[in-house]
Amino acid sequence: MAGVELKPGERIDDLIRQDLKIIQNPASFCFSMDAVLLAHFATVKKDDRVVDLGTGSGVIPLLLTTRQKELQVTGLEIQKEAAERAVRSVRLNGLQEKIAIIPGDLKQAKELLPVGQFDLVTCNPPYISPGHGLLNELDSISIARHEIKCTLEDVIRAGSQLLAFKGRMAVVHKPHRLVDIMCLMRKYNLEPKRLRLVYPRPGRKPNMVLVEGLLGGRVELEVLDPLFIYGADGEYTPELLGIYYRPSDCF
Amino acid sequence: MAGVELKPGERIDDLIRQDLKIIQNPASFCFSMDAVLLAHFATVKKDDRVVDLGTGSGVIPLLLTTRQKELQVTGLEIQKEAAERAVRSVRLNGLQEKIAIIPGDLKQAKELLPVGQFDLVTCNPPYISPGHGLLNELDSISIARHEIKCTLEDVIRAGSQLLAFKGRMAVVHKPHRLVDIMCLMRKYNLEPKRLRLVYPRPGRKPNMVLVEGLLGGRVELEVLDPLFIYGADGEYTPELLGIYYRPSDCF
Repeated sequence: MAGVELKPGERIDDLIRQDLKIIQNPASFCFSMDAVLLAHFATVKKDDRVVDLGTGSGVIPLLLTTRQKELQVTGLEIQKEAAERAVRSVRLNGLQEKIAIIPGDLKQAKELLPVGQFDLVTCNPPYISPGHGLLNELDSISIARHEIKCTLEDVIRAGSQLLAFKGRMAVVHKPHRLVDIMCLMRKYNLEPKRLRLVYPRPGRKPNMVLVEGLLGGRVELEVLDPLFIYGADGEYTPELLGIYYRPSDCF
Repeated sequence: MAGVELKPGERIDDLIRQDLKIIQNPASFCFSMDAVLLAHFATVKKDDRVVDLGTGSGVIPLLLTTRQKELQVTGLEIQKEAAERAVRSVRLNGLQEKIAIIPGDLKQAKELLPVGQFDLVTCNPPYISPGHGLLNELDSISIARHEIKCTLEDVIRAGSQLLAFKGRMAVVHKPHRLVDIMCLMRKYNLEPKRLRLVYPRPGRKPNMVLVEGLLGGRVELEVLDPLFIYGADGEYTPELLGIYYRPSDCF
């Protein structure tokens, strides 16, 4: 932890996998299960060059490093405070050689990052459309949750600009936006290839969708088996526990 | 059964609900669970005017009459032999006042039927894209299974032409075509509003999707709870048995 200081209100949380730690400020936006499921869902290959759009505290880059040894991950974050916090989390874990955090707006992605050079783009975007939900102030939590600074189309457009041909874009979102995700991906030549629905428990509607598109991919969607958070017994399912607690995929 | 004769190779099958019977020829295309699930999934309201595109032996119109008392259902079928068989099935059940069978090509739907006048269009279309699957001959089974006489786009275009504003189109298809269904529906102003995935059993990928779009509907998809055919015990689930065996919704 040499050189990594906490600012007022911050705390260090345990990411469980590989002793990874993350600095968060509970008064700001803290990562949720969505980010963990996305980092687990995305197809990750050796030596992939990865961008995480709107990386927040950097949770997805940190988790992705446990999926493959040789990743190079760039996290782009518009909120300076969150980006700076992510930089410290990267240092805290000694991952400076694998993860770079860049402050910036994903709408300027092609000015900030090399175009057409990445193998994977991930994004856990703001879920709430303009005009929906309670929006008290333009604070950091609102920016992370609401489409204030970027729309879903901005996210998908940025992904398609950054990816190399046959590169993948993986996103997590709410089920009611699934049509938008699929049609926007197709609009930007990102053919949706994998879909997984996350259900809170048996007999309930899903509350998350995980979608991966392939730049220039041919039409053929694979819908995976359902992921249940809780079983009929009210306990976390073995699969969910495995996602959180299993040893890393690569070490 | 007065006036209803069977032709060589035909048999009468029991639809279980309300003593409904259907004439099928096992050498031709027989309906499957897909049609039963679609007839159960579609939103049906009192006095709805309904069209079933590619009705085959008429199974969906027959089943829909058990969902609401006052439906008027038209079945359109390109294959003359199947259409004629459907006419006899309607007579067999004494449903001539509720179901009309029209021989014809759904690509000519707007010449054959009143445009913009229907509340619900259903379709269990051919699943297999041109160039996929084994296609031995242009027989009746191939026409029912392969996109020979119509594409998915033809089906969705026809639905959008026939529906009144805020009318519904409900289709069943294979999961790998879900992106096509959603994007084509949106192209023809049929906003996908309800999606249900059908899984053969827990832990497996889905093998059917049920989608309902609303002509002129606003963007907001509801993804329903998963429908499992078999439970972990290898038996039909109570829900599936209920769909097949429960008393009708309306009598």
